[in-house]
Amino acid sequence: MIEIDPAAVEDAILSLARHGAHGETGVWRVAYSAEWSSAQAQIEQWLAAAGLEVRRDAVGNVWGRLEGTEPGPVIASGSHIDSQTPGGRYDGALGVVAAIAAVRALKERAGRPRRTLEVVSLCEEEASRFRSASFWGSRAITGETRREHLDEVRDAEGVSIGDAMASVGLDPERFADARRDDIDTFVELHIEQGPRLEDEGYAVGVVTGITGIRHYVVELGGRSDHAGARPMLGRRDPMPGMAEIVLDAIGNALELGPPAVTTIGRMEVEPNLPAAVPDLVRFTIDARHPDAAEQERLFALHEAAMRRVADARGLDLVTRILLDLPPAPCDPATVATFEAAAADEGVPVLKLHSGAGHDTQRMSRIARTAMVFVRSKDGRSHTPAEFTSVEDAVAGIRVLAAGLRRLAY
Amino acid sequence: MIEIDPAAVEDAILSLARHGAHGETGVWRVAYSAEWSSAQAQIEQWLAAAGLEVRRDAVGNVWGRLEGTEPGPVIASGSHIDSQTPGGRYDGALGVVAAIAAVRALKERAGRPRRTLEVVSLCEEEASRFRSASFWGSRAITGETRREHLDEVRDAEGVSIGDAMASVGLDPERFADARRDDIDTFVELHIEQGPRLEDEGYAVGVVTGITGIRHYVVELGGRSDHAGARPMLGRRDPMPGMAEIVLDAIGNALELGPPAVTTIGRMEVEPNLPAAVPDLVRFTIDARHPDAAEQERLFALHEAAMRRVADARGLDLVTRILLDLPPAPCDPATVATFEAAAADEGVPVLKLHSGAGHDTQRMSRIARTAMVFVRSKDGRSHTPAEFTSVEDAVAGIRVLAAGLRRLAY
Repeated sequence: MIEIDPAAVEDAILSLARHGAHGETGVWRVAYSAEWSSAQAQIEQWLAAAGLEVRRDAVGNVWGRLEGTEPGPVIASGSHIDSQTPGGRYDGALGVVAAIAAVRALKERAGRPRRTLEVVSLCEEEASRFRSASFWGSRAITGETRREHLDEVRDAEGVSIGDAMASVGLDPERFADARRDDIDTFVELHIEQGPRLEDEGYAVGVVTGITGIRHYVVELGGRSDHAGARPMLGRRDPMPGMAEIVLDAIGNALELGPPAVTTIGRMEVEPNLPAAVPDLVRFTIDARHPDAAEQERLFALHEAAMRRVADARGLDLVTRILLDLPPAPCDPATVATFEAAAADEGVPVLKLHSGAGHDTQRMSRIARTAMVFVRSKDGRSHTPAEFTSVEDAVAGIRVLAAGLRRLAY
Repeated sequence: MIEIDPAAVEDAILSLARHGAHGETGVWRVAYSAEWSSAQAQIEQWLAAAGLEVRRDAVGNVWGRLEGTEPGPVIASGSHIDSQTPGGRYDGALGVVAAIAAVRALKERAGRPRRTLEVVSLCEEEASRFRSASFWGSRAITGETRREHLDEVRDAEGVSIGDAMASVGLDPERFADARRDDIDTFVELHIEQGPRLEDEGYAVGVVTGITGIRHYVVELGGRSDHAGARPMLGRRDPMPGMAEIVLDAIGNALELGPPAVTTIGRMEVEPNLPAAVPDLVRFTIDARHPDAAEQERLFALHEAAMRRVADARGLDLVTRILLDLPPAPCDPATVATFEAAAADEGVPVLKLHSGAGHDTQRMSRIARTAMVFVRSKDGRSHTPAEFTSVEDAVAGIRVLAAGLRRLAY
């Protein structure tokens, strides 16, 4: 059994959470902020203390390297340290703490690995400051960043991501240097963010793949009218049309059955006055499925519902697709390695898919991937209330370490 | 037949619309603004030119008085000159132009009336600047204003209505002087703001009463969750609950039949993110009926639907009533007088209720009331696109003048 000190893990979680602490248990730590800089500096210090060779890459990802005895591509583990606004102590941060603890434990127990191990603290995943910069850290590693992003990607105050990088001492023009082509396997430990491990009584899960995600923006247009002077029958009111599409879309996901999910989370009404029939209702439909064929079925049902409702009610329908991430299956052999590693450690694990997006889905473009999930209290995340017990975190770190041992030693 | 010069009416409409002109055909003229002040000055000039005794009351309503040969309470006519943001040239303004034209024509044709006639240009009806100040002008006349309103009623910039009054030269502390107890009858000409006259082929209508209006604010609370990590079945999602209530409420109005109307015009979602099940959906229900008993049936149906949906879905329901105006029937004898006056003039009229609120419903607390409606193109109002032809306006003014003649001469 790989020994991981629970007190050290708890201390690391709480120490990291002080950088950008928000209220009692929250964290507000957006990319390239002062809090973010001090958190990355803290991680550099821990990596150095663990005896790893530390460097910060061109976009601000922090790496720690433990050179293997053999040449060849790298086995890497890590997650992101930026947060929601506010988020909690665990989403992302726990995966960085876990990777450091796992590699440190392996080094202390077994010395130098056969294959090179790296730990990475990714600079930006949530896009909570730069709305169009999700996976900014991992996209730079996979070579998906383009020079024009440096100026085009801006925060709510209009600051470009290039200027924000310069403000923390990075040279944005060097962004392409962050690209890696020598990563064989990337493994990320993350909180589940959902209720399945809790519901089924597991502390730890091994992830088989990451769901596909599509965001539609739906604009349903009618004709604004006076709420009193226009009788019901002559109206072209988009509001009941929206209501029908909401019920149909949620009904489609229920009918297709788990793991299909569909969420209407954002809505805007124009002119948004109590005494005016709206001109326009604009809303999002977030539709997810981890299986590509089933996801296409879900999309087709949603699109048919929108068309049917708009036609039946004589409403104008405009739809745009704002986000379209295909399902990203994990590497079956690597998944099997982590299941075997969990058995080594005597940790029972549930195999499950991830319903949330993760840096791992970008890394899957250049590396074999797997993920280790740990139980989220009440299935919550993206809130200061998110919580994972130290016991569950330690169980997950043991599985992570045992898997890295199988891959690198 | 009472002669009204169409060219003079058109000129007055266009002249008044220059004060606060917005785009090609719009007007943006909120209470106590510079545009509003110059519009009231214009009206004072027209009243004086018509030979009326002019005064501005304590809240800024402008009055023109034509003294009768007999003592006793007054026959008054007018409307408001403030606009939506933006509104059009006709809503409110046409009723002021009409009252001036009608009284001027009567004076020129028949001289001094038996009973005193007054024209009023009311200062504020729409509440487009001061959201809680609807009917501010007429409420001061009926004695419904309280001293604390002067400070409590504020615009979006935080300016109190008392300070706004002072900025145009009024002494807000004198507000109570605007009260009148000597108005026998108040008659308001207004654009219909709906499609009934147009649909049924009438230029002019005589209003039997003003609808009751209730605004509910409905808060439907659930639990925010990650749109991907939380399966459909464990959610407490307020969004489909809102959708069911919207469809039920609109269905209730359709089932009860005309003239019942119900509108969901305003909606806010928290946290309003594409990838988060909402915590809360907050929306308004505007429910109207001109008959008090039928209105109560409509309210009971809406309240039952809200309760049923919240209970079935385990959602938290909080409702507040933000506005509750009972139906305000017009005085049947005065309505009959205006029907007879229309016959005098050979103008066919439709009897109809008003689905919109009007100063007349406040004036009905202290006076007999009636309203004359003129046809709105496409039933539109509260937009620069609202339009009433000069021919229709003149037909309405002739009915107004003939009715005032029956009452005052």
